Amino acid sequence: MKKIGKQTYNIKDDVVIRDTFTVVGTKEGEGPLKNNFDLIVDDLWGEDSWEKSERKFQKTAIETLLNKNRLQKDDIDLLISGDLLNQIVSSSFAARDIGLPYIGIYGACSTMALSMGVGSLLIDGGFASNVICATSSHFCSAEKQYRLPLEMGGQRPMSSQWTVTGSGAVWLSNTGKGPKIKNVTFGKILDLGVTDANNMGAAMAPAAHDTLKQNMLDTKIDYDLIVTGDLGIVGKSIVNRMFHDENMSIEKKYDDCGTIIFDIEKQDVHAGGSGCGCSAVVFGSFLYKKLLNKEIKKLLFTSTGALHSPTVSLQGDSIPGIAHCIGIEG
Amino acid sequence: MKKIGKQTYNIKDDVVIRDTFTVVGTKEGEGPLKNNFDLIVDDLWGEDSWEKSERKFQKTAIETLLNKNRLQKDDIDLLISGDLLNQIVSSSFAARDIGLPYIGIYGACSTMALSMGVGSLLIDGGFASNVICATSSHFCSAEKQYRLPLEMGGQRPMSSQWTVTGSGAVWLSNTGKGPKIKNVTFGKILDLGVTDANNMGAAMAPAAHDTLKQNMLDTKIDYDLIVTGDLGIVGKSIVNRMFHDENMSIEKKYDDCGTIIFDIEKQDVHAGGSGCGCSAVVFGSFLYKKLLNKEIKKLLFTSTGALHSPTVSLQGDSIPGIAHCIGIEG
Repeated sequence: MKKIGKQTYNIKDDVVIRDTFTVVGTKEGEGPLKNNFDLIVDDLWGEDSWEKSERKFQKTAIETLLNKNRLQKDDIDLLISGDLLNQIVSSSFAARDIGLPYIGIYGACSTMALSMGVGSLLIDGGFASNVICATSSHFCSAEKQYRLPLEMGGQRPMSSQWTVTGSGAVWLSNTGKGPKIKNVTFGKILDLGVTDANNMGAAMAPAAHDTLKQNMLDTKIDYDLIVTGDLGIVGKSIVNRMFHDENMSIEKKYDDCGTIIFDIEKQDVHAGGSGCGCSAVVFGSFLYKKLLNKEIKKLLFTSTGALHSPTVSLQGDSIPGIAHCIGIEG
Repeated sequence: MKKIGKQTYNIKDDVVIRDTFTVVGTKEGEGPLKNNFDLIVDDLWGEDSWEKSERKFQKTAIETLLNKNRLQKDDIDLLISGDLLNQIVSSSFAARDIGLPYIGIYGACSTMALSMGVGSLLIDGGFASNVICATSSHFCSAEKQYRLPLEMGGQRPMSSQWTVTGSGAVWLSNTGKGPKIKNVTFGKILDLGVTDANNMGAAMAPAAHDTLKQNMLDTKIDYDLIVTGDLGIVGKSIVNRMFHDENMSIEKKYDDCGTIIFDIEKQDVHAGGSGCGCSAVVFGSFLYKKLLNKEIKKLLFTSTGALHSPTVSLQGDSIPGIAHCIGIEG
């Protein structure tokens, strides 16, 4: 068994992150990472619905990643993707147009690490040579589905987060050069009873703490940087406090994609960025570049998901959280 | 690479289907397979919503499978599950209560074969010794989400199918005795432009034909029985015709779980059963027993999914289909 410790999978063979492609919307393109993204477009991008626009983001990310590397369909064994929309419709329609054998996954905002985790194991297990992992989210399609119609102009509390409009695609391969995925920890679902759809950071923080801690206990690796997906300032502070209370403080080397992607004070995003696209585009641009140029040598990349369902929330249910970790060496 | 042919993964090491558990609702319990199911309950099962009932079906299937085999949480490496409801909420809430490391997947009604496929590769790749794969569906929660409120009493056309109320859980292991999974084919998404949410069989048939054909070309195995998940009488006849037109007729050894689970003439289910639960409970009861007692020696089990999204259907989009195949030896 290729397990280290209790819950972490060890990747012995090479799983190389060969390349990435990121495309984001206007607001993300005005933020601190604007020079890191591959493509910045307007949020509707010529489509007549937010859903069709989100699909175009994901399809473009995957297709451009293939094209810029001169990859043909036959070069890729599997596409693994998912997103926030019901029936992961952005992913399935993008996958339909791209025509690769397809594994659809759902992990809410934990999708990027989940897809890279499954992809890594399938490559290391000898089942695939090249895998494309992708996800997307869109502020407007997400608000419409999960909260309130944008046209209503509802007031958002300070704990709410801004769903990132963007898509990231990652090419994993068993050959070539680049940062390598060394371990994967799939998380458990934790639920501390948060019921506020405008406080996803708090809903996800316990799961983030649990999977991060498990990975660190299992691997005993001293990471340069630990990054969570989209906890925002509320969730990030809870995670810091949970580790601090256990005398395992990670504060000095810990950051969150939701606080990296926006200028929280100037961009009016309340508690920060969120959505599947958040960790996908921050990883595929900013973090990937830092791994390539060796600014980061050991990265613990964690995507965090709030398994929020509007239907069962109306029936009184809470919002469980999950997090998946990927250990990467630059 | 453990690939045979173009798109099929060869399982060399033992991936044994150690045990299954199935629980179904009233109508399924009155059908031809009534003596095959492990548990038959009423559809609401003491809960105050269809969603909470469906969740109880899935949680019960998984927990009972663990308990009857005296399996502790630490014995199981991963839970892989998904369902039809938005945010796969039946699966994530069941997974929350069970507390295992969790991979959420979405493949609409193709979920059972998808989860068993991913699980098999992770076991064969040396990442897991024991995996639980599960899915569920519920007639009432599915009609509510995908079509019309039941209370409306809408007339259903003859091509419509009856979503199975039930859940099946499967224990895959790298040790012990039982039928073995020998190969896995993950399908591509195909879309021939069907837009009728009451004709899922036609939407799924091209994908079923494509993945089945690919598996047979790749493996060259002469299966005793080929089974699709939930095409019903409309989709089944399309698949038969597609193979017939290519001089590859499979009619004599081909059947569909949607036509097996109900007495279509007497039970007023129109074109037959459907839903993730359909192939899950037919496989977990009827087919698994036939594999155990060697009535079937070589089974090609295929779950078929219609990636129907009510939101984008209202925007004029069609319903793409997908199918995943598992080759099993008794």
